[in-house]
Order: sequence, then structure tokens, then C-alpha cells
Amino acid sequence: MKINFEPIGYIKSPHKEAEGTPIQTGGAKGIEGELELLSKHQAGLKDLEGFSHIILLYYCHKAGDNKLVRKPFMDDKEHGIFSIRAPSRPNSIGLSVVRLTEIKDNILKIKDLDMLDGTPVLDIKPYVPEMDVKEVTNIGWLEKNIHKMEVKKDDGRFLDEKEREK
Amino acid sequence: MKINFEPIGYIKSPHKEAEGTPIQTGGAKGIEGELELLSKHQAGLKDLEGFSHIILLYYCHKAGDNKLVRKPFMDDKEHGIFSIRAPSRPNSIGLSVVRLTEIKDNILKIKDLDMLDGTPVLDIKPYVPEMDVKEVTNIGWLEKNIHKMEVKKDDGRFLDEKEREK
Repeated sequence: MKINFEPIGYIKSPHKEAEGTPIQTGGAKGIEGELELLSKHQAGLKDLEGFSHIILLYYCHKAGDNKLVRKPFMDDKEHGIFSIRAPSRPNSIGLSVVRLTEIKDNILKIKDLDMLDGTPVLDIKPYVPEMDVKEVTNIGWLEKNIHKMEVKKDDGRFLDEKEREK
Repeated sequence: MKINFEPIGYIKSPHKEAEGTPIQTGGAKGIEGELELLSKHQAGLKDLEGFSHIILLYYCHKAGDNKLVRKPFMDDKEHGIFSIRAPSRPNSIGLSVVRLTEIKDNILKIKDLDMLDGTPVLDIKPYVPEMDVKEVTNIGWLEKNIHKMEVKKDDGRFLDEKEREK
């Protein structure tokens, strides 16, 4: 079964290279950018400006090989790809919850941007605590490592080989 | 730009038809099911059992036309598709945060299941409050409607026409 998607828009971001890019929105507080939605989808934005936060699903377009076990940015041990948030995945879909500050025509101004410039966006959903906030009891290997989240930066390890040679 | 994905596995769920299915995990508390991962991806599950909650991204395979303005289950007014969580979207990707109770080989036992039986899964990510919990200031049109979330059921309105004729 093949599933085909097309980008609904693209990210404009100050992060031009993987190296040095925050690894999560928590390390990107206040960083501003835009989502430029394709104008054919503009009607779908109706009433979105009422939400302070939105979920962006996007295609990690520079991610490379998808080995099933990898060292994440926050640990020096290997973990399964489904227990880490690395961009290189069997289906390289990224997820970021960002602040929505303004919508003007087909342009969404956003804050806390941890995405690369040019990232193709697949979906926008309103972020709703009643749906998206869960009380967890365990966060596995991250328990001892989550304190690194806001300071660790991308070092390019998940880039496609062609991108690394640039 | 075409983006091609393949399912990493499929959902086994007691929800066989859209009609009557909970519209969010909050309305599906305790409902049990499984994710049967394709065995070729099994190594990617390493260390996932340490997480109490996981994010599932999936393809809403029975969703129909993707009109940009729709009436959601929780309101009788129309809103833009990006300000509602309906399954019919320009790229019909669903997102559910579910409880992970057990992993046995390539089978993940999950609770709070709001997905249809047979749903193709695109990605599994660990749910991490430090990444996924945000303090919002506004939830737009849902402010007055979110109390319906746990009781409203799917009525089939977003089904593909072929599915509706069945």
C-alpha cells in the first residue's frame, strides 16, 4: 500500500542548516518564522487564528537513511527509532507544537520554530489540551536525559548523505 | 513534490465502522486494541516499552472528500479544516496519543483507542510532556464546545462516498 501526500505549504525559518538547529521547540523559544500555505488551501484556515498553539506535521526532507536503532541527540546509547524523536524514520514525519501569533492571508506567523528552512508541511491541526495533554507515568530512557533538551543542538547526524557532503 | 509513505503496521480495533466510534482518545478511555507492526520494523521498538504513552500518526484510510470548510462533530457551524480535527484533510493524517500497556514481539497493546480497525499506521513516537505539553491561552471555537468531546460519536460524515454506500 502506497500513500501519497503533497505539501500544503513550506516553512520559512532562520535555521538554514541542520547543524546548530534546536532539537525541539523547547530549545527554540521565541524563534520566529512563517508557514507559507499554498493559496489553494487558504480557505482551510478559517477560525484557526483563535488558537494560541498549533500542531505542525511535516516531512523531514533532509533526513537520511532510516536505520531502526540510532543514538539520539540526548543520549550516547542506542535506542529504537520509535522510542526517539529523530527526523530519520521509516516515514520521516516531524511533529512540532508551535505558537501561532498571526495569520495574514495564506501566511501563518509562528514562534518556537525548530524546523529547517524549506520544510514541506503536511498538516496543521489546532492544539487542544483536552486532546493532546496526557498524564504520563513513564518517559523511559528520557527520564535521565530530558534536561538536555533545551540546550542540545542538531549536529547533522541524521542528514541524508548527499546533504552531509555539501 | 510527491511524498510517498508506506504503512509501518496496522491497527486492530473494536471500532469496525466509523458510525459510533469515539471522536478522540478522551472518549475512548480504556478501549483496548493492538498495533501490529510489520516485522521488518520490529528492531525499532527497542526501549519503547519504557514509555507509558505514545503518539500514533496514521492514515485515515476511509476519509472522503477534503472540503476546506466543514462542520466538525462538536459544532453546528462550519470551520476551516485546519482548525478542526476531522479525518478528511488535504493530507488525511490522524494523530492519537494512546496508552502503551505491553509490547510482545511486533505487537503493541494499547488503550484509549479511537481508531478504526485496519487503520494503516505511519509513525510511532514516544509521548514526552516536556515536548508535547504546552500552556495554551486560547482554543478558539472549541472553548464553548470541548465539553462534548467525551460523549460525541462519529456519525460517518467524513467517510468516503464509496464507504457510505456500503
